[in-house]
Amino acid sequence: MKVPVVTEILKANDQVATENRELFRGAGVGVVNVMASPGAGKTSLILGTLARLSDGIEPAVIEGDIASSIDADRIAEEGVPVVQINTGGNCHLDAPMVRAAMSHLDLTEVNLLFIENVGNLICPSNYRLGEDLKLVIGSVPEGHDKPFKYPGIFAGADVVVLNKDDLADVFEFDHAEYERGIRMVNPDVEIFRTSCRTGAGLDSWTAWLEKRLAALGTGVGAA
Amino acid sequence: MKVPVVTEILKANDQVATENRELFRGAGVGVVNVMASPGAGKTSLILGTLARLSDGIEPAVIEGDIASSIDADRIAEEGVPVVQINTGGNCHLDAPMVRAAMSHLDLTEVNLLFIENVGNLICPSNYRLGEDLKLVIGSVPEGHDKPFKYPGIFAGADVVVLNKDDLADVFEFDHAEYERGIRMVNPDVEIFRTSCRTGAGLDSWTAWLEKRLAALGTGVGAA
Repeated sequence: MKVPVVTEILKANDQVATENRELFRGAGVGVVNVMASPGAGKTSLILGTLARLSDGIEPAVIEGDIASSIDADRIAEEGVPVVQINTGGNCHLDAPMVRAAMSHLDLTEVNLLFIENVGNLICPSNYRLGEDLKLVIGSVPEGHDKPFKYPGIFAGADVVVLNKDDLADVFEFDHAEYERGIRMVNPDVEIFRTSCRTGAGLDSWTAWLEKRLAALGTGVGAA
Repeated sequence: MKVPVVTEILKANDQVATENRELFRGAGVGVVNVMASPGAGKTSLILGTLARLSDGIEPAVIEGDIASSIDADRIAEEGVPVVQINTGGNCHLDAPMVRAAMSHLDLTEVNLLFIENVGNLICPSNYRLGEDLKLVIGSVPEGHDKPFKYPGIFAGADVVVLNKDDLADVFEFDHAEYERGIRMVNPDVEIFRTSCRTGAGLDSWTAWLEKRLAALGTGVGAA
């Protein structure tokens, strides 16, 4: 086992993240860091978004998992370029892992990159990857108290998508309480409700994402 | 921020965990480390188990969360002794945190202790707390692929409870695939299916738990 020192790791990670971002900007690629608990629907939301992208947007995906290529296989079936990172036990992606994965993508052919982080509502929030947007996906079955219990990741989010919202009644999900918890730590963050199963909410989420990435000066919408 | 070195932390943690276990054994307390993703139903399963314990079993609970006392409040409402640990961002409980929490419990009045870990399917598996049993709770809405993606925590489990099983049809949950994933890394582990909402499966889980803790020579069932 290596003996990393946490502060040094975070500093080194930040430096590589800044370089990643410059590389992405130079190549005209908008980048979304997708974070959520295990099973909240990260891959499903990416797939639902891919299916709704405007003409001219050329997506790619980096999949982060401790083990397996289950998610990357689902993306590859759609004909979208995808790279799988297996962290081998590591609880989050970091900027050097993303750098290594980038080298397997032809960024000149891409203008929107989703980076699906390891399923974890805590650790990924500490590691910048070089992204333009941090997306946190919540899930109705997890319960509406999650923002109160995991404030860090919600505090850092640029946008929150609440998925599996078609089951809100089944789980007696209190949207007002959920959003109150988010706004306590992140007052102005955008919040969407989706169901990847029914497709509800995916059109407006995708439209917002494209607009936001264009406004940030990324390659999305620049053509 | 502190500058911890990972290997040293794990060694120091193991030492305190061993001491914790000796203290628990000396006090005749059986200890269960409860691990799961956010929202899988850790607190609900503890509450459902508390309600079904045999006479003579005196429970207590240590609640681990990054922030809030939502879960501890639910336990306290049942009149069960409970201590809340707020990790302040830390992604798992460790043995020194449990040691500190123990000092707030009268162990002579207790023979069964649940330690609810932080909601995280990765990091808690690396930190022994001094427990007799590691319980991993899965949840149907998370999907049946989770053992393939998070093998470490399933490999170390003494028992797995699959919760929210009343919704297996809604989520097209494949039990055979889920159990195949678990058995790939942990061939003989006990697996239960429960629904804390309907109560299904809780009687047999609780009966097994009591028997197992008695067989391990803890205070449970020793009277």
